[in-house]
Amino acid sequence: MARTEIRIGGFGGQGVILTGYVIGKAASLYDNKNATMTQSFGPEARGSACSSQVVISEGAILNPYVRHPTVMVIMSQEAFTKFAPRLDPEGMMIIEEELVDPQGLPPTVKVLGIPATRIAEGLGRKVVLNMVMAGFFTAVTGLVSREAMRKAVETSVPKGTEELNLRAFEKGYEYGLSKARA
Amino acid sequence: MARTEIRIGGFGGQGVILTGYVIGKAASLYDNKNATMTQSFGPEARGSACSSQVVISEGAILNPYVRHPTVMVIMSQEAFTKFAPRLDPEGMMIIEEELVDPQGLPPTVKVLGIPATRIAEGLGRKVVLNMVMAGFFTAVTGLVSREAMRKAVETSVPKGTEELNLRAFEKGYEYGLSKARA
Repeated sequence: MARTEIRIGGFGGQGVILTGYVIGKAASLYDNKNATMTQSFGPEARGSACSSQVVISEGAILNPYVRHPTVMVIMSQEAFTKFAPRLDPEGMMIIEEELVDPQGLPPTVKVLGIPATRIAEGLGRKVVLNMVMAGFFTAVTGLVSREAMRKAVETSVPKGTEELNLRAFEKGYEYGLSKARA
Repeated sequence: MARTEIRIGGFGGQGVILTGYVIGKAASLYDNKNATMTQSFGPEARGSACSSQVVISEGAILNPYVRHPTVMVIMSQEAFTKFAPRLDPEGMMIIEEELVDPQGLPPTVKVLGIPATRIAEGLGRKVVLNMVMAGFFTAVTGLVSREAMRKAVETSVPKGTEELNLRAFEKGYEYGLSKARA
């Protein structure tokens, strides 16, 4: 893996930035790769779709900007509309399947969906949908290890919410494994 | 203002990343400048001091990495030890004054302190110390406008906590104004 560019998109309040942060932290601090997370506030940041960009690389990262993402994690239709055109045609589109209708993608894109909000609600806290997405991402991409992600989640979420967030992560991870086997 | 580089540092749980996010958002979405926020997870990210880097510029930002910060916002001694040596000798060091002892800085650095944690506790929630710091930063640097920051805070914090965070912001802002007049 030379360099993998990931874009995470959704609306404010879904935890888009924490998701990117946890993935970057897992890759670098626990999986011993290099990672950066960038938040740009250009014209594309105006409007309610927000996003964070993560680069993971075995080597040094000279440019942290994401130009040709091969993986997207998308949690709202507006974010899909805004960011999907930049996805690599051979890339992977991971969606919150009850919030995103993935229209107009090239047939070569691999689309993987999960009802993350509903799963999070089942755990009693809709707000952990981002950790459900993060678990799903971990299982279906293999870009970061499950153990590294668990440590990153544990050390990044607010004190007192570690267990809830890890449960959400595991739910997403299991769902991803079952999809991978299907 | 060609390009201003800012580093925000502290320990996990102090809201270092949200602080950088709010400053970047205020500068770009509401003050019509350009801004980026970068989180790097290199060797310097190991350990408990965490940081976020913000670049504000009137022009395009070609490189979002912060190499010569002119402003630092530091909330822990470990972050001070780690990041202070990189501060521009003519720069400004903004500290949580009860958590940071700013030793060894060149005499040309301007040091400005605020007891942000104590002020946040006075509002009933220690966790808003980062918004107290953000308000103080706004008053003493003038890099972002108060109105832009208020809008950025309001649209970035968890739903239901807007009022508390804005109160914390205003407390820090007022404290900064009184220091500026002193």
